[in-house]
Amino acid sequence: MRAKSSKSIDYYIKGLQRGDRYILGECITLVESTKAKDQSIRLALLQYACTLKSASRRIAITGSPGAGKSTLIEAIGNRFITSGERVAVLAIDPSSSQSSGSILGDKTRMQELSQSSGAFIRPTAAGKTLGGTARHTKEAMTLCEAAGFDTIIVETVGVGQSETEVAGIVDMMLVVLLPGAGDEVQGIKRGIMEMADLLIINKADGDRLSLAKDTMLAYRSALSLLPRRHKSWRPKTIQASALYKQGLDKITAAISEYYTALGSQAIHQQRLDQDAKWYRYQVERMIIDRFLKDPSYAQVVKNYKTQVAAAKIDAFSALDQTILKILGV
Amino acid sequence: MRAKSSKSIDYYIKGLQRGDRYILGECITLVESTKAKDQSIRLALLQYACTLKSASRRIAITGSPGAGKSTLIEAIGNRFITSGERVAVLAIDPSSSQSSGSILGDKTRMQELSQSSGAFIRPTAAGKTLGGTARHTKEAMTLCEAAGFDTIIVETVGVGQSETEVAGIVDMMLVVLLPGAGDEVQGIKRGIMEMADLLIINKADGDRLSLAKDTMLAYRSALSLLPRRHKSWRPKTIQASALYKQGLDKITAAISEYYTALGSQAIHQQRLDQDAKWYRYQVERMIIDRFLKDPSYAQVVKNYKTQVAAAKIDAFSALDQTILKILGV
Repeated sequence: MRAKSSKSIDYYIKGLQRGDRYILGECITLVESTKAKDQSIRLALLQYACTLKSASRRIAITGSPGAGKSTLIEAIGNRFITSGERVAVLAIDPSSSQSSGSILGDKTRMQELSQSSGAFIRPTAAGKTLGGTARHTKEAMTLCEAAGFDTIIVETVGVGQSETEVAGIVDMMLVVLLPGAGDEVQGIKRGIMEMADLLIINKADGDRLSLAKDTMLAYRSALSLLPRRHKSWRPKTIQASALYKQGLDKITAAISEYYTALGSQAIHQQRLDQDAKWYRYQVERMIIDRFLKDPSYAQVVKNYKTQVAAAKIDAFSALDQTILKILGV
Repeated sequence: MRAKSSKSIDYYIKGLQRGDRYILGECITLVESTKAKDQSIRLALLQYACTLKSASRRIAITGSPGAGKSTLIEAIGNRFITSGERVAVLAIDPSSSQSSGSILGDKTRMQELSQSSGAFIRPTAAGKTLGGTARHTKEAMTLCEAAGFDTIIVETVGVGQSETEVAGIVDMMLVVLLPGAGDEVQGIKRGIMEMADLLIINKADGDRLSLAKDTMLAYRSALSLLPRRHKSWRPKTIQASALYKQGLDKITAAISEYYTALGSQAIHQQRLDQDAKWYRYQVERMIIDRFLKDPSYAQVVKNYKTQVAAAKIDAFSALDQTILKILGV
């Protein structure tokens, strides 16, 4: 047996071609690698994946902790698998700063789904840097598509920045809420509601059924007042119980309707627009990261930021002094 | 008479101290200057302005073209002036790439206000670069405060990016809408609704009165479902007619209530938090600008972005090649 590092590009590509989940996991780990020796094979793998024409669906599911995202993903995922599809789940953990390389991580949360041969579940680390989410998740998504997965579900906690980044790499945004209106109940960050293509009021069961219905109706009318992303799609609001497997048909139907309403041409165009923006955004993040990689520069910026926050220096002076120190003019 | 460039810092500071609007205009022009010879006096002016304790109100008014922002600003501004305040209006024009240096620009739009000795109106160019709005507007705002203006109103067209930047430098966001619900009528960009501290349904007059009331009630209930920015403030919805000077009392009252509800300590803390974020954001923008100032680098990025958008190269390869070309690794 050869050492891991000496596996050929052929090994990986053939693995992806036959949809091998173990090798897909290896590919993602390799692509996430920052080691110099992995860089050429890293790019070759991504380039190979991009040559394939994928008719996959790229769906993000976001919502507060406790909204029942995982249970919902498991329930929807199993539906897709039952109908003959293969489903990949990329779960972004904003608290984790490094990725777990386990092929079926998060087993405890999505037990049924993780045991299905049609599923691939992988936690993706958000990373310490802005832009990291979008970079690693997009790469992993592309590899999943190359391995023949039909639906890629990106799970993300509603904390703001990751959602904006994730919205830039998926086709459709699902936001999961709880029965009960208002900020105290939902606890999601500002800006996320306006990203929703589909709003799901989860845990609509038992005593909460009536409240869930009221919540659904209220959000339905609220959504109708918010600016729309697509002319051909009016965001939907659906009540469901992932636990009791209720409302799942409506959710999968709404996903299909969304793709039909937009049409493959518009989805293709949206992906190209997203790619161009993603490219520009990543270039900027990399320039900043490269600059602030110098620990002394990073320290300068951190110190000034702290001082500005503490009113020890005004922001204009801090900016001028920073530019002088790190850009030299 | 001495040449403009040889005016001393004393000339400017004394001008600001006596609230001289002509000199305030000169100060803003000077601070916007990128000429090397202006840089030391530029920073000295801003530093002087930051030493003053200002109890000013920083308010942004945003909304689509045609929502009646200017008329509304004129009407509210005149109210403040009548009650003995001095009002500065900084109007951000996203289409203009360079600032007009006229002390009372935009005379045609805010005729009454511009003739008042208690008013200062100044168009601010958004500039070609991201971050420029936030930089120049914050600088101009600080100078207006130093010149004794009590209320600074930042007017911005609802195009998305400027609003996010402006939200980071003001205390309170007012969003102006038209009677009639839905995206087709309002035409504002996604994400702006969730920034509103006060929503004004303008043009609530004549035939539109009943529609305006329905619109107000609909948005009022929608806003109650969106995440809130402040625990101590629930965004308000008010109908008004700037043209017929109706609802203005409610608007000025809501502004006062907002400041009372948050309290001066929370406003002070919010400004410090904003300053720290503004500082970090501007550092990043300046690093990127410095990097892409090299025309050959800027061209590389532009070319690749176009190619990615046209599916001529995948985004991963474009990113790798860009980094290699401009960061050299």
